[in-house]
Amino acid sequence: MTQHAQFLQAATEFGLITDESLYTQFLTDFTDIKAGKPLAVFRPKTTEQVAGIMSACTEYGIKAVVQGGLTGLAAGATVQDGEVIINLGQMKQVVEFDEIGGTLCVESGMVLEEVCQLVESKGWYFPLDLGARGSCQIGGNVSTNAGGNRVLRYGTTRDLVMGIEVVLPDGTVLDMLRRLIKNNTGLDLKHLFIGTEGRFGIITKVMLRLFPKPERRYSALLAMNRFEQITDLLKFSRASMAQLSSFEVMWKNYITVASEVTGSAIPFDGAYQYYVLVEIEGADSPRLEADFQHFLERALEQELADDAILPQNISQSQALWTLRDASAEAMRARAPYLAFDIGIPLKDMSRFIDEVEAAIARDYPDIECQLFGHLGDGNLHLTTAKMREEDFMPVEELVYQITERYNGSITAEHGIGMIKKPFLHYSRSEEELKVMAQIRNLLNPNNALNNGRVID
Amino acid sequence: MTQHAQFLQAATEFGLITDESLYTQFLTDFTDIKAGKPLAVFRPKTTEQVAGIMSACTEYGIKAVVQGGLTGLAAGATVQDGEVIINLGQMKQVVEFDEIGGTLCVESGMVLEEVCQLVESKGWYFPLDLGARGSCQIGGNVSTNAGGNRVLRYGTTRDLVMGIEVVLPDGTVLDMLRRLIKNNTGLDLKHLFIGTEGRFGIITKVMLRLFPKPERRYSALLAMNRFEQITDLLKFSRASMAQLSSFEVMWKNYITVASEVTGSAIPFDGAYQYYVLVEIEGADSPRLEADFQHFLERALEQELADDAILPQNISQSQALWTLRDASAEAMRARAPYLAFDIGIPLKDMSRFIDEVEAAIARDYPDIECQLFGHLGDGNLHLTTAKMREEDFMPVEELVYQITERYNGSITAEHGIGMIKKPFLHYSRSEEELKVMAQIRNLLNPNNALNNGRVID
Repeated sequence: MTQHAQFLQAATEFGLITDESLYTQFLTDFTDIKAGKPLAVFRPKTTEQVAGIMSACTEYGIKAVVQGGLTGLAAGATVQDGEVIINLGQMKQVVEFDEIGGTLCVESGMVLEEVCQLVESKGWYFPLDLGARGSCQIGGNVSTNAGGNRVLRYGTTRDLVMGIEVVLPDGTVLDMLRRLIKNNTGLDLKHLFIGTEGRFGIITKVMLRLFPKPERRYSALLAMNRFEQITDLLKFSRASMAQLSSFEVMWKNYITVASEVTGSAIPFDGAYQYYVLVEIEGADSPRLEADFQHFLERALEQELADDAILPQNISQSQALWTLRDASAEAMRARAPYLAFDIGIPLKDMSRFIDEVEAAIARDYPDIECQLFGHLGDGNLHLTTAKMREEDFMPVEELVYQITERYNGSITAEHGIGMIKKPFLHYSRSEEELKVMAQIRNLLNPNNALNNGRVID
Repeated sequence: MTQHAQFLQAATEFGLITDESLYTQFLTDFTDIKAGKPLAVFRPKTTEQVAGIMSACTEYGIKAVVQGGLTGLAAGATVQDGEVIINLGQMKQVVEFDEIGGTLCVESGMVLEEVCQLVESKGWYFPLDLGARGSCQIGGNVSTNAGGNRVLRYGTTRDLVMGIEVVLPDGTVLDMLRRLIKNNTGLDLKHLFIGTEGRFGIITKVMLRLFPKPERRYSALLAMNRFEQITDLLKFSRASMAQLSSFEVMWKNYITVASEVTGSAIPFDGAYQYYVLVEIEGADSPRLEADFQHFLERALEQELADDAILPQNISQSQALWTLRDASAEAMRARAPYLAFDIGIPLKDMSRFIDEVEAAIARDYPDIECQLFGHLGDGNLHLTTAKMREEDFMPVEELVYQITERYNGSITAEHGIGMIKKPFLHYSRSEEELKVMAQIRNLLNPNNALNNGRVID
């Protein structure tokens, strides 16, 4: 028998799917990275099964890739020829809900939206929110350290996780499912696995930190013509509203396309250079709305914005978020495109953008830029649209070279996967890459797990 | 020449102090762990000097211990015979202050209080606050992941740090001083060094995340007789006051001694079982004080507390904090004592305490317990006072055995150092300890740095 056949025989007990027609649903496709043909697909139901698969992979020299909701943007979960797929979608049990302390322990395969609905039904709140909420899985959110719309107040997913359970590439199970906010007992091992996209181990369970459920949420759209107004407005918003949860900025070149593709009008008479969507979340106090109104008035008085709109009802409020959430449609309307996910200090952002736009206008005059981002977090989403595919690589190099000069991140929230691996050196020094590779070699010595992703 | 002599000759350029009479000021003493005689003391002024010392240590087989403000409670910095001391107190320059984005980069030796004053003079705020603020150094705060009084709102030091510069035990410098809130470029290496107490490298510079400076701060003291009222009050406080920054609980057995040693009266007519000190921080709005008053009224109406005091001026407010801050004096008043620093899920805390108190009363009827803690973070400080020194070890074993059964932490904020190293296994599984030791072996293979601390 071949190694493959021996492996498959040994692994039948671990949730193996043998019907080849079912494989296709686990394939993913991405612009640059194509999905290959898997050796087999597993849909394990327990941590022990995941551990069994990884032990068998190590024993028989087979490579595995772990998959969650397949909503990632860096092709980290796209299967390659001959890999076995470990799909965690069958692991979605609630392990423990502490309604007094506010923690929820669930298996990795639970969809984010279900997590949020479950905790909200009990008066708690899990603040992670992103466009893929209806299909991304919580294990994937944690392993990629997902960002989203409310990082400004609650932090990234890393900050929302108290503990995890991990299966190492050799099949060892690390149970770190503690319900502790503070725990200074040496190295906090969970940070080896949060944000490393399954390269060092498979996250099988997560212990989530919950927050009191906000009773009210208010949004407003502000518009201005000078970038310095945005940085001043952010500082003013943070100082005056402890309830501030989002600070999303849209450039004119983005909101124009977003308005066009959604049919949702830009709710101002004049045109402005910048639009800021501000959101607060808080208790049901008659003062909260009055405070928010007062905040908007002062922002206008101090000329931190040139105009502002406070929606009068939920549907008006949703219309504002429709413009912000239309990013995927706005990009597709101007395909082919590249979607960048840059992290840059706010202080340098304006100069960075000027430099990037000038360089693109000079070398690629037909390219249209769209700009929006979670500016409260220094996270800029730049889309270079109406491209020719042969320009993809040189435009990436161009943008990342400028990013490097500003000591920025080539990916603030989307991750490295396979797509950004060639560019990792623009955001990490040689010494950092060496330590990262040494730790990969320590925890995943045979590359049995997620080979070819993130770091060699 | 001996290895020692060769080392000292090679290392003269790195801030070496050769006057032996100066050594003593760098010695520390602790109840259990005695300071030894150092081979030499370095007071480097630059990262390059620190790197030079570590290179030379590695080359000549010398062991080094790193020291900051020497305020730690786990004897992690207490020098052992033959070690060289690397004292960072001369490295206290400001590297960069971004007043727009709100970040401060400083060298590790700056005293915490100076950091706070510096940023407050520019309208920003660094929220880390602990009793040793006047002498602890920011590098030590980061390497021990300090906790303190405002973790509930701002997180531990880990959450306040955007980037660090580290000298590895072999002298390699890792520059990770980025001003980025979000950066998903693979493994977030800084978490290897935050909270590991210098075991894997020396933190030489830190990039701190700043917050808007609060304009107003209000405190109140609430009293109650049932523990369930505390957990309900915490949930209510978190839900209704986004400005909540502290939630400190004192038991009757603590506040009685604290009142006695400070001469500060407990400001209630009757005696209660529990006292909760609540603090909010926010913008200078006429509504904030009214909101806080309204919050207290509702807490009493809903019977989340049996009584409450809202100070009428700053000195009354300080008197409340005097009671809370008297913990060191309260312990010393009942010496010999052991000071525990337990992390425990809030849901289990009441049962945990009952069990510990019953076990101590049964086996050690003369011991007096004092209880207080940052309960919003699940952090309980238990003092076992009026002890006999021969009971230290068995009482520690007793408390940690119960902690282990509740899946708690034997140190929520103070760290492991040398004092708690023998007990680490009560809070970490064999598999976790194995990975931690493997990483120690990878990054500090010859134990050139902080040997005998945290993990072997």
